[in-house]
Amino acid sequence: MKKILITKPILSDYKSLLNCFNVKIWDEDSDGILDYQRLKEIIPEYDGIISMLSNKLDRELLSQAKNLKIIAQYAVGVNNIDLEYCRDNNITICHTPDVLTKATAETAFCLLTNIARNIQPAAANARSGQWKDWEPLGFLGKSMFELKLGIIGAGRIGQEFATLCKNAFNMEIFYYSRTDKVQFEYQVGAKKLSLDELLKTVDVVSLHCPLTDETKNLLNDRTFSLLRDDVMIINTARGEVIDQKALLKFLKNNSRAKAGLDVTTPEPLSPQHELFNVKNCLILPHIGSATYEARSEMSQIVCNSLLKFFNNEELKYILDT
Amino acid sequence: MKKILITKPILSDYKSLLNCFNVKIWDEDSDGILDYQRLKEIIPEYDGIISMLSNKLDRELLSQAKNLKIIAQYAVGVNNIDLEYCRDNNITICHTPDVLTKATAETAFCLLTNIARNIQPAAANARSGQWKDWEPLGFLGKSMFELKLGIIGAGRIGQEFATLCKNAFNMEIFYYSRTDKVQFEYQVGAKKLSLDELLKTVDVVSLHCPLTDETKNLLNDRTFSLLRDDVMIINTARGEVIDQKALLKFLKNNSRAKAGLDVTTPEPLSPQHELFNVKNCLILPHIGSATYEARSEMSQIVCNSLLKFFNNEELKYILDT
Repeated sequence: MKKILITKPILSDYKSLLNCFNVKIWDEDSDGILDYQRLKEIIPEYDGIISMLSNKLDRELLSQAKNLKIIAQYAVGVNNIDLEYCRDNNITICHTPDVLTKATAETAFCLLTNIARNIQPAAANARSGQWKDWEPLGFLGKSMFELKLGIIGAGRIGQEFATLCKNAFNMEIFYYSRTDKVQFEYQVGAKKLSLDELLKTVDVVSLHCPLTDETKNLLNDRTFSLLRDDVMIINTARGEVIDQKALLKFLKNNSRAKAGLDVTTPEPLSPQHELFNVKNCLILPHIGSATYEARSEMSQIVCNSLLKFFNNEELKYILDT
Repeated sequence: MKKILITKPILSDYKSLLNCFNVKIWDEDSDGILDYQRLKEIIPEYDGIISMLSNKLDRELLSQAKNLKIIAQYAVGVNNIDLEYCRDNNITICHTPDVLTKATAETAFCLLTNIARNIQPAAANARSGQWKDWEPLGFLGKSMFELKLGIIGAGRIGQEFATLCKNAFNMEIFYYSRTDKVQFEYQVGAKKLSLDELLKTVDVVSLHCPLTDETKNLLNDRTFSLLRDDVMIINTARGEVIDQKALLKFLKNNSRAKAGLDVTTPEPLSPQHELFNVKNCLILPHIGSATYEARSEMSQIVCNSLLKFFNNEELKYILDT
């Protein structure tokens, strides 16, 4: 019987696996912390793994995985995996695109509504006893109607987020992408701009690109300088797309600007990190796909992929390395 | 020259008044706290007042206001004012409807997105250093797409909020109202239900009715018992529409239910209040209309009303007492 490791407890949809495989669901409460070293020690015995973004599967670790034939990544991004090693050593990688599109777009949308209307500082004010009276000038936010939105990366999640903003608040949509998105342009009236033009134009900039050599530090000292001083910046992509030191400087120098981050560098971000101390920054612990609906579908997909793979059937969500 | 009191500093649009009236803008930093007693002492000298919801203008206080001809309320609701006394004593009341419709609907929408996706507890987790790893089961929220929304009160703000929810998430809309809203039914496919039927049906219930004898404690032990155990409750109307003790009990007994409140009883709510200690409740310090756009229009309206009133012109936003 093939041995499968699930590196964290997931929603119960994995039960379909139990009849066909010898499944180990790692539970830190009983099994201890599954850090990089521990995973490297135990990986040789497994034929397949359901991995999280937080499991670093690099060349050094994978070279120990003598039996490993398939990595079923419980995420859409795979930047924790050495793709080249997998290709050269015939390890199949599959992931969970599509199903977390809506949940992640919703998360970006929640970040935007939250920072636009100062929900976090207002709630903290009430909770801490600083709320003394109704204040005509208290927590004045920005109406979201008719704002100019710029998305960087116009894949599934970016398009879904832009559509939410268009439908709810009739925002004007701009995008930066390597390729023209004709249908998207037609559906929400989106206009393609160069990166610099987009950054100069918009009230809200939201990141939806994968992390690559090209997109790393795409928002940096130079590009931040192009933004409006009351811009709202949303990141649900990857922390590394933003030069975090440059972001901190920008937020400190522009008190009317705001940022909402579901992703940071590193993750988790130390609670001592200075970004937690600037009032105009809201940080979430990477909950992009955290809905029952999305996580249940993700569980079903990774489990189905494993079943099909070892049954020699064609995989739907395979990654082309 | 007529004397006008503005009980709190407001956005600078009041400047139009300065040429025509003797204007006192009360500033607590220099003038001390303008509590009920203090206001009662100084009210006799004023011909007009720009009042906040937090200024209790009851019979006892108004009976001292010998010169007062007009109350320009910096809000849409007027439940702080003794309307009967004003009618009997020929004091005109005007207010600021319409202009805060979008801002308040946005606030209800922000509360909903926030509680649906656990933004507040997730942010607190990250900030407090409890964020240790990416968690497949952490902060799982509910997708807002296709939910059933019930609004109680289908005036301007209720309709605007429902339209936001329909446009963004294609929610199914139900409403409870004394009157049929034919155009609203046509525009978003809203269906009118009895109160009990609505409460039994919906995933989200949002309050948008004025505070009256009929709506006081409309959500109480009996009506809470009709709700789903994972319902989301939004209140941007008035705190007294909810029996707060019953709400507390309901939230404690139904950990999957959630509430987002922009209004409470009383305001401010003591930080020792138990509602601050239930994890499934988010409380804001009454920021419904807190956008630059709305508050600026509110300032313009109250000032215009005063100018027109003392110039014997017809008022647009007069209250029919």
